[in-house]
Amino acid sequence: MHHTDAAMQACIDNCLKCYSVCTGIAMNHCLEAGGKHTEPAHFKLMMACAEMCRTSAHFMLIGTPHHKHTCRECAEICRECAEDCEHVGDMDECVRACRACAESCEKMAA
Amino acid sequence: MHHTDAAMQACIDNCLKCYSVCTGIAMNHCLEAGGKHTEPAHFKLMMACAEMCRTSAHFMLIGTPHHKHTCRECAEICRECAEDCEHVGDMDECVRACRACAESCEKMAA
Amino acid sequence: MHHTDAAMQACIDNCLKCYSVCTGIAMNHCLEAGGKHTEPAHFKLMMACAEMCRTSAHFMLIGTPHHKHTCRECAEICRECAEDCEHVGDMDECVRACRACAESCEKMAA
Amino acid sequence: MHHTDAAMQACIDNCLKCYSVCTGIAMNHCLEAGGKHTEPAHFKLMMACAEMCRTSAHFMLIGTPHHKHTCRECAEICRECAEDCEHVGDMDECVRACRACAESCEKMAA
Repeated sequence: MHHTDAAMQACIDNCLKCYSVCTGIAMNHCLEAGGKHTEPAHFKLMMACAEMCRTSAHFMLIGTPHHKHTCRECAEICRECAEDCEHVGDMDECVRACRACAESCEKMAA
Repeated sequence: MHHTDAAMQACIDNCLKCYSVCTGIAMNHCLEAGGKHTEPAHFKLMMACAEMCRTSAHFMLIGTPHHKHTCRECAEICRECAEDCEHVGDMDECVRACRACAESCEKMAA
Repeated sequence: MHHTDAAMQACIDNCLKCYSVCTGIAMNHCLEAGGKHTEPAHFKLMMACAEMCRTSAHFMLIGTPHHKHTCRECAEICRECAEDCEHVGDMDECVRACRACAESCEKMAA
Repeated sequence: MHHTDAAMQACIDNCLKCYSVCTGIAMNHCLEAGGKHTEPAHFKLMMACAEMCRTSAHFMLIGTPHHKHTCRECAEICRECAEDCEHVGDMDECVRACRACAESCEKMAA
């Protein structure tokens, strides 16, 4: 049976975790809180980050060499989302998930 | 910050695990093996199962009451995929992931 | 080469149109407008509707008999989204796309 | 109400068309035909192309400036998929959809 190597499996896990955290927090915490949490630039960045993480995981699961490109973009958007969530505040879980995902993805993109 | 209850979080995890296993095995093991592994009905069922698991997780992350309906369909397709993978053989990881996901989803759909 | 029948192709087109309209309007119009447009129940319904439409199209494209189940759920969520958007107001394009999608999906689910 | 400009709307349409054609043909024509049509590198490229087109459309619908990056990767993968489908043969509809999507995406990435 097929075996993904350990580094890639860790990256898939980090991507799916970050996708889950960004989606769950945007849809529940941010919409309830309102104000700067639903400010368009912030909310759209969280939605884009969630989608990119999901896609990046999908490319690694497919096992296509293009995963390097999706991981590179995923690392970039996760870094930006982490900074933005830190600035908005009260989003620590999201900041951690984005940073962990960005680190994994940078390794896979190299 | 938002907290999903433990049963729902377990179901999200099972859905994302089953999505990952079905996608990874179809794209790597099945395409390499060929024969009954790429027989259209079997392969399409694996692809549909992966997509339904991903969607079912997404509905729980959104936190919409419609997750009951997507979980019900997810349980049904996972049961069918588990049986089909068992019949094809050499797909134990997929059978286990589909059964665990079906059990979780049945509880969430109730 | 493969040919999807005309009714199913029309339903795929309606699903992808409704997915596009719900996503585009939620992310641009609703986030800018705020107020009742970002009220959690409304916004989450739009996100769930967009995701279900995308999944329903995907099941028809895969060509799995399970598309009947995803089309049934898609019709239900589109009807609910159309009513909710009509109630919020200033969402005519979304109401029309949801109703057209619901009608197509009901035929495919039968 | 929100209006996407005409060039971006055309690109979204081309991405969703290419996603539909790649998914539909892989799942129906390629799985039925077998042989070089289900050769792992070819089939995985079609799946990756379909996913990237779907994601690229999603980024434009969200209205995030990161769409430039997803459009750039989408153009690249569509070009590669078009060439591969041309080489495999009997995939004219897919070749055309990939080329049209690549051209649109290149404009949006600029």
